[in-house]
Amino acid sequence: MHTAVQPHPAAAKGGPAKAVRVAVAGATGFTGQELLRILARHSGVTIVAATSSGTTAVRKLPALAHIFTGEITPLDAASLASEAELVFLALPDKAAAELAPALLEARVRVIDLSGAFRLRDSTQRARWYPETHALPEGLAYGLTELERAAVASARMTANPGCYPTAALLALRPLIDAGVVAAGADIVVDAKSGVSGAGKTPSERTHFSEVHGSVSAYGVFGHRHGAEIEQGAGCPVNFVPHLMPLDRGILSTMYVRVTPGTTEESLAGIYQRTFGSEPFIRLVGAALPEIKHVAHTNFCDIGWRVDSTRRAVVVSVIDNLLKGASGQAVQNMNVMLGLDETTGLL
Amino acid sequence: MHTAVQPHPAAAKGGPAKAVRVAVAGATGFTGQELLRILARHSGVTIVAATSSGTTAVRKLPALAHIFTGEITPLDAASLASEAELVFLALPDKAAAELAPALLEARVRVIDLSGAFRLRDSTQRARWYPETHALPEGLAYGLTELERAAVASARMTANPGCYPTAALLALRPLIDAGVVAAGADIVVDAKSGVSGAGKTPSERTHFSEVHGSVSAYGVFGHRHGAEIEQGAGCPVNFVPHLMPLDRGILSTMYVRVTPGTTEESLAGIYQRTFGSEPFIRLVGAALPEIKHVAHTNFCDIGWRVDSTRRAVVVSVIDNLLKGASGQAVQNMNVMLGLDETTGLL
Amino acid sequence: MHTAVQPHPAAAKGGPAKAVRVAVAGATGFTGQELLRILARHSGVTIVAATSSGTTAVRKLPALAHIFTGEITPLDAASLASEAELVFLALPDKAAAELAPALLEARVRVIDLSGAFRLRDSTQRARWYPETHALPEGLAYGLTELERAAVASARMTANPGCYPTAALLALRPLIDAGVVAAGADIVVDAKSGVSGAGKTPSERTHFSEVHGSVSAYGVFGHRHGAEIEQGAGCPVNFVPHLMPLDRGILSTMYVRVTPGTTEESLAGIYQRTFGSEPFIRLVGAALPEIKHVAHTNFCDIGWRVDSTRRAVVVSVIDNLLKGASGQAVQNMNVMLGLDETTGLL
Amino acid sequence: MHTAVQPHPAAAKGGPAKAVRVAVAGATGFTGQELLRILARHSGVTIVAATSSGTTAVRKLPALAHIFTGEITPLDAASLASEAELVFLALPDKAAAELAPALLEARVRVIDLSGAFRLRDSTQRARWYPETHALPEGLAYGLTELERAAVASARMTANPGCYPTAALLALRPLIDAGVVAAGADIVVDAKSGVSGAGKTPSERTHFSEVHGSVSAYGVFGHRHGAEIEQGAGCPVNFVPHLMPLDRGILSTMYVRVTPGTTEESLAGIYQRTFGSEPFIRLVGAALPEIKHVAHTNFCDIGWRVDSTRRAVVVSVIDNLLKGASGQAVQNMNVMLGLDETTGLL
Repeated sequence: MHTAVQPHPAAAKGGPAKAVRVAVAGATGFTGQELLRILARHSGVTIVAATSSGTTAVRKLPALAHIFTGEITPLDAASLASEAELVFLALPDKAAAELAPALLEARVRVIDLSGAFRLRDSTQRARWYPETHALPEGLAYGLTELERAAVASARMTANPGCYPTAALLALRPLIDAGVVAAGADIVVDAKSGVSGAGKTPSERTHFSEVHGSVSAYGVFGHRHGAEIEQGAGCPVNFVPHLMPLDRGILSTMYVRVTPGTTEESLAGIYQRTFGSEPFIRLVGAALPEIKHVAHTNFCDIGWRVDSTRRAVVVSVIDNLLKGASGQAVQNMNVMLGLDETTGLL
Repeated sequence: MHTAVQPHPAAAKGGPAKAVRVAVAGATGFTGQELLRILARHSGVTIVAATSSGTTAVRKLPALAHIFTGEITPLDAASLASEAELVFLALPDKAAAELAPALLEARVRVIDLSGAFRLRDSTQRARWYPETHALPEGLAYGLTELERAAVASARMTANPGCYPTAALLALRPLIDAGVVAAGADIVVDAKSGVSGAGKTPSERTHFSEVHGSVSAYGVFGHRHGAEIEQGAGCPVNFVPHLMPLDRGILSTMYVRVTPGTTEESLAGIYQRTFGSEPFIRLVGAALPEIKHVAHTNFCDIGWRVDSTRRAVVVSVIDNLLKGASGQAVQNMNVMLGLDETTGLL
Repeated sequence: MHTAVQPHPAAAKGGPAKAVRVAVAGATGFTGQELLRILARHSGVTIVAATSSGTTAVRKLPALAHIFTGEITPLDAASLASEAELVFLALPDKAAAELAPALLEARVRVIDLSGAFRLRDSTQRARWYPETHALPEGLAYGLTELERAAVASARMTANPGCYPTAALLALRPLIDAGVVAAGADIVVDAKSGVSGAGKTPSERTHFSEVHGSVSAYGVFGHRHGAEIEQGAGCPVNFVPHLMPLDRGILSTMYVRVTPGTTEESLAGIYQRTFGSEPFIRLVGAALPEIKHVAHTNFCDIGWRVDSTRRAVVVSVIDNLLKGASGQAVQNMNVMLGLDETTGLL
Repeated sequence: MHTAVQPHPAAAKGGPAKAVRVAVAGATGFTGQELLRILARHSGVTIVAATSSGTTAVRKLPALAHIFTGEITPLDAASLASEAELVFLALPDKAAAELAPALLEARVRVIDLSGAFRLRDSTQRARWYPETHALPEGLAYGLTELERAAVASARMTANPGCYPTAALLALRPLIDAGVVAAGADIVVDAKSGVSGAGKTPSERTHFSEVHGSVSAYGVFGHRHGAEIEQGAGCPVNFVPHLMPLDRGILSTMYVRVTPGTTEESLAGIYQRTFGSEPFIRLVGAALPEIKHVAHTNFCDIGWRVDSTRRAVVVSVIDNLLKGASGQAVQNMNVMLGLDETTGLL
């Protein structure tokens, strides 16, 4: 029923054979459009379908006109299952919770950008994602740098949330190395652009509400807090803030470190963990800025330690790329055995 | 039914007697809130009601907590008519078209911030404001500086649109002085902040759509074009643009002037027309900027003329103040015989 | 030598006698202009001089044209001392450190908006403000709500920094009430608009650097950290961040509270401390936003407490008003025995 | 003296042989950095030098760390001439006027992004670019779509200004087709982001000046006006405006068209002129927006015509790409006989 959706001739010409057939379910939201933008230029895949569950009307995407000339079609699980080898779910949690099992049943691999399958603990999952019934076999949590082996063999990857990606890439090396002082509070103060709130218009996303303002939200009640604590393995005091910019997250983390820990020892830990990672840049005391990662798949990490064992770690990502669609394609590259950077540099 | 809504004690203390009872119908939109902000500090009026037609729930306005502690009540025409001597309509066109005649009938004076009663020509009005049946007796068009006498004796004032205010204050002195070359095109290229689009969330007003972008809209089809042409008395090529800022309009006007017209002669014309106006500042070749009028009731006007009889005139206003609520209060001051600047400096 | 600088006739007309002669040294920076804007409308003072040390050229301030028509004159200590009864110093630290003693010597009262006289500890002062030699007699620290008595009788007031104002108004009531757990870390994660960086152009304040970005700076090395710790009386982990907006600070504070402390008990503490303050609004769990305090002298404070004794407190101010010029005028009102809200509502 | 500057290994791996040696003189400004970003990923060239005339200190570019790991070296004409086959000049006008002849002398091809060599008329050139002595042999004006043949055989290409690119791509097809009414005014009202003002900090580019404001500048006195008139072959009333965004130009053009001209006839003209152009997208009455071309080399063009022969044409580009570095690489591709889209899609 779906005909193959072709990229713009100019983009495709001279390209190598695109072996793997992929589809994007939920192609008109912010993350769906970013997925199409990356996949249309990707040398290893062909986009066979881009669907929208929000409407039955076939539509074009003007912002992508130069690289993706295909049509947006209504979401149809059977068609996706028969035509695609791998499907990205850029859908609301509930829709993803329903569609993923059906696709897996049909032996299609899945990368889910929703939150539906991120939490392993059933109590937490019941609280934050009540539509999700059970976790499927062969599920990986797609924080690529720290879960690469699991992702490589996964039938399905739950792509991490944007805030957890920024927080855990910075915190996990320190926690795993044992330099975080036991029992001390960990604070994650995160600042996000508005695209993280999604494309649906609301009072919260009205330009006049956001422009010239900053606000905290979801204190003690944001589902990404549960995901961060799952990854950290301990309580984390996470507060997200909405900033007047479109894309990007800057996460400032406050931890107590163990005696003897210095900026240099943190540098060593990060270097050992991420020194050969293509998408992580360690900037140390220089501290990172959102503008250096906007429109890229990079996560930049900086840190400072003072003489009283206080450490401040700052990480930045583009919430739509490393925090969503970029990392999703990175995971796809791992799952397909391709060079992990394909389409992402 | 309505109890008098009191301003914050701190704001009121020591103030003079507030004689005139006024009400705001439609108090929760951008212009309604600006009206409350001005009227709560105004030394000559008491706010007896602030209504919202959008909801029956009584609500508070946190942004105005320090100056206005009253409650927002459901819109009730009979109550307004019995309690207020003058009512501001900050309503959609249709609601204003219905409410205004009822209030006038009850001998309440009206200042209408909607577009419903701005166009005198019935054909134009039928096209742009089909809900408006007839123009009432005693109606003035409230471009204060140019219609002061009519406003002073009006039972009702139709407050001008934001774009027409910026355009006509700059153009009318030149047209009236006869220095605009006959038959030459007049171009009005207007740039507006997002608050001009109103408070209702939409794709158009989503932060991520507006941030980092600029767009033209309503070419040959914006109802403010008809209002500008009514004021100018000739065809005007008007194109509005949406800018990534919250408040303010900058309007750039391109006209041919008659032989012998210079920057100095324009200065003379503007000086004669507006030299003693409290809310118009003439900046000449310096050209005005939005930031100098944001959060004020001023209109700044600048101009340049070259040797080939081309003139460029630039005017700026705060669209919510001089372009809406500020000018509305200015008109109220005129209608009530108060000092025209009361509450506005 | 200085002639009295008159406010705009429109603003002045009908006003009461303006008894106290005040001057602004450093009138062309952001805080200096805000001072002029407030003082020109203030019913209790007359501006007798507005000086600029940066230039000898007499200048006008177009943005203030409607309320302040005076000229900016070169800074001249002797003239200031002979003409003004009270002088605001909106100068760099070094200039303020030099000028203040001379003015006090001449029996002129001083409100210093620089940092030169904020730190009581001489070691800390030597580190952060080496140009300041000694603290004068009769010096108060002008965090008005917490130091009102000292300010009232002061010959000179050191106006607090913007970050310390936002942090200490939120933290001090909790510390003073003894509900902050001993030995636990206190984190102050502050987000500021660009005007806090001052008016001098730099790479840091270039629009293209700031727009679309967020960055942390001054980790473990910002002089406001010392001022916050002085006020808190204990170590505080303070990290400021630069946001893409013009005005405003939002400060997020993370503390451990003592057993049994709840949101309600914090509400009681704040209510007892600030319940009758005209410029502090307690919003509780609603959490405050910068847009509600921009262009006002308010500090809004909100808080949340969870079951594990973690508290998150959020405060917002306009950095140029409550964080600088507004609080300076508030202090002036206290020093002069005027109603504290005069000119500020 | 220069060692070859290598791109990031990740970016380069598996790439084809990079035959042509290119250099960027002036690599640290906005356009220089964009050039490096494009050239580092370009499959047909190797960057052999990236110089900065502003400093002798060798520097890194953190924002480009993932694709360009080379060092910035001091500008040295002899080295450039001996190592590069083609040099991009992203320099101030004066520096470009001096360096270009020396490079051509040494048989190096040149693409100049400054204005020094754009104006053919010596009187105009003397007025706007007095440092430029004479135009070299083999010089093309690099408005690629309209000058492709000249560019292909040029020894040197003068890359057009950002405003002229946006204006002329929209106007020239209409002028060339003879549908612009003789003697009627042509108005070009252009709106630009701040990056067009360059990287040097100034009061004009301070975040607090630009945020929340819009201003016109350079009325009747902007050198791009001369360049637009050169391309149009007739007087054009050009007024640029500064907008609160980082990148992008939207140009609104007002023209009278000849009798019988309709939106459909304009569509035909644009289709015939640009129908097969890879970097021009014709959107007709939909009207283009900056966000659709930001970070791309596209120029989107839309138009409306009314029944009184008024036409409004709107074009948008990214000022740093199609308006500068993107078009420069497009011209390089043409000069080198490469696929014109290489590195640009």
